[in-house]
Amino acid sequence: MSIPRTAATFAPPVMEARRWLDGVSFPAERPLINVSQAAPVDPPPDALRQAMADVALTCDDAHLYGPVMGLPNLRHSLAAETARIYGGAISGAQIAITSGCNQAFAAAIAALCAEGDEVILPTPWYFNHKMWLDMAGVHSVPLKTDEVLLPDPDAAEALITPRTRAIALVSPNNPAGVEYPTALIRAFFQLAQRHGIKLILDETYRDFHAQDGPPHDLFQDPAWSETLIHLYSFSKAYRLTGHRVGAIGTHEHLLSEVEKFLDTVAICPGQIGQHAALWGMQNLRQWLAGERDEILARRAAIAEGFGPLEKRGWRLLGLGAYFAYVQHPFEMASDDLARHLVREQSILCLPGTMFCPEDDPSGRRHLRIAFANLDRTGIGHLFQRLLSFAPRP
Amino acid sequence: MSIPRTAATFAPPVMEARRWLDGVSFPAERPLINVSQAAPVDPPPDALRQAMADVALTCDDAHLYGPVMGLPNLRHSLAAETARIYGGAISGAQIAITSGCNQAFAAAIAALCAEGDEVILPTPWYFNHKMWLDMAGVHSVPLKTDEVLLPDPDAAEALITPRTRAIALVSPNNPAGVEYPTALIRAFFQLAQRHGIKLILDETYRDFHAQDGPPHDLFQDPAWSETLIHLYSFSKAYRLTGHRVGAIGTHEHLLSEVEKFLDTVAICPGQIGQHAALWGMQNLRQWLAGERDEILARRAAIAEGFGPLEKRGWRLLGLGAYFAYVQHPFEMASDDLARHLVREQSILCLPGTMFCPEDDPSGRRHLRIAFANLDRTGIGHLFQRLLSFAPRP
Repeated sequence: MSIPRTAATFAPPVMEARRWLDGVSFPAERPLINVSQAAPVDPPPDALRQAMADVALTCDDAHLYGPVMGLPNLRHSLAAETARIYGGAISGAQIAITSGCNQAFAAAIAALCAEGDEVILPTPWYFNHKMWLDMAGVHSVPLKTDEVLLPDPDAAEALITPRTRAIALVSPNNPAGVEYPTALIRAFFQLAQRHGIKLILDETYRDFHAQDGPPHDLFQDPAWSETLIHLYSFSKAYRLTGHRVGAIGTHEHLLSEVEKFLDTVAICPGQIGQHAALWGMQNLRQWLAGERDEILARRAAIAEGFGPLEKRGWRLLGLGAYFAYVQHPFEMASDDLARHLVREQSILCLPGTMFCPEDDPSGRRHLRIAFANLDRTGIGHLFQRLLSFAPRP
Repeated sequence: MSIPRTAATFAPPVMEARRWLDGVSFPAERPLINVSQAAPVDPPPDALRQAMADVALTCDDAHLYGPVMGLPNLRHSLAAETARIYGGAISGAQIAITSGCNQAFAAAIAALCAEGDEVILPTPWYFNHKMWLDMAGVHSVPLKTDEVLLPDPDAAEALITPRTRAIALVSPNNPAGVEYPTALIRAFFQLAQRHGIKLILDETYRDFHAQDGPPHDLFQDPAWSETLIHLYSFSKAYRLTGHRVGAIGTHEHLLSEVEKFLDTVAICPGQIGQHAALWGMQNLRQWLAGERDEILARRAAIAEGFGPLEKRGWRLLGLGAYFAYVQHPFEMASDDLARHLVREQSILCLPGTMFCPEDDPSGRRHLRIAFANLDRTGIGHLFQRLLSFAPRP
């Protein structure tokens, strides 16, 4: 008997990790520090909440089906914003709004791949990308990254076969935090172009990039849309995770394929979330700059405070956007270790084993720390606990 | 080169039909009658809109990621409501909330099927079911229905092979309007049970069923969850199409497979829509009963007024919920005819060719009329136009 699509992949890691909390009670002096999920824990600013309430009360259309590919205003505004940020040319017709950025990836794969095709993913990889490829019957071809977690275009080229349809990059990277340099992103674009495959570039965390100015120059290439599939999320920028609004930017011909998938799996993105994303882009640019400053300050606190952990054998491998990717000094594998951290230090983080192939031993030594929700004090507590930690036998 | 998943299916029919309107201007005395899409055109009642605004303003959690399978309150309330309506036993743990009912179907197929598996669909079929199966690499096995558009369990049994994973029924039916009798639904359930396959039963239009009392008795079977996959939508009942809230009810073991798909393609259903669905179930039972009465009155108006069309050779094949499925008397194929109706009578409806395999000639003679948005006066206008219509050569 054949194996159903979902049986070809693993259980959702974030939900799995949440189950580690079941039956564990945390002492009052050592409450849970949850650094497992990359998501804001505060609601959007009041003015945006008021804007959403106004839409619910006054905009009749917001309660009805909208266009499959999203509200035209939102598509055009995102195109203008993208052109502004990257200094390139992109039109509303080259953008589809999706119910979150995971769905944008899923739609892209459906539009590109058939059973048995291949997509190259640098490791550690984003687990939902791996899960979707598993469920789509597409082979995830792991591309090992170097000691600073950057992928090498030449190594990628050696993995390309007649079945390769795309290379998928995430920058700033989930889970590794690392920001891919402009020149590296361009090298991957040119590699994809040369081989007639697509470059999927997921920039969910772009708004928290440490670099001032555009993170890459691909939109300045007049032919960008023939090779690039750009993914974006409004969730992190405007704290809209509960409303599921993402986007995909690529060639119109490919979007008409994407439309089939979106029509069937969603019909349209949620309307109030779309209005919220539009309002956010129109009104929250300065607020978002402040959010970025805060994330960058937290990132600096991680970098500055990591020294004592290094003396205990920890290593900070990647740092950026919402994430620190660290190597632990223990014999124990990271998935066991993560459970010890829950019980013994009230820390919930995800083990590296969730971000790489089972046969890749590096995952056993790594942990992902999604630090964005910790202020400097919280980061201090986290480090104290890690310093005092030695897993019980 | 292999064919990408989306290339294995057709363009979204509703969007395709909308494009027939491009460049057509409708005279003031004959405005467009749009009976193409099965969706409310009015927003939800004011009290529900106010409830949604209140959630946006006061419920912090509603802006953040929620559980992959939906809000526990909503799952439990839907279970209680389902138990009340059908007189059976179902728990919140047997329900997952989805981003619309299309997604519920997609998730079910992902949890059941592998490449090359088969699902039996009565014809005419719901096009998004067919599209998803195409994109999932699953063969849609058409099951011809009889002269009143009902499928025959014996005929279905003859189509079952070792690759068959499910039979998918829609009742009240989209596109055909017909309500499947309780005994017929039970016969299909028993057939599925006997063969160890699943019965997917999509009851998106259940709240507008003409029959008082439960539309079937499957939930009264203590073993229902081992065979039944029940799909429901909050979109039509509470006019929430723009918020994407559906549900899937089945065995917990299967739901843990469904969870993988939902996590990857959506992460969670939109939160405000979920709160709206919950509020609707808690507060709008009487309002919904009034909505049903109105739909049933419109249905009666179709049935009563159809006589003159019959004399011109039209036949009313199916009638119920939001739909009339009719046979036209012209030589022309329905897909051509539908375009003539736009230009010559300002009527937009979908041709039968969108609801059946290409090699099934019956589709060429049929039209689907989604009448729910027409009041008695509008139905009168529709009939007048159809009566006076003869396609120009």
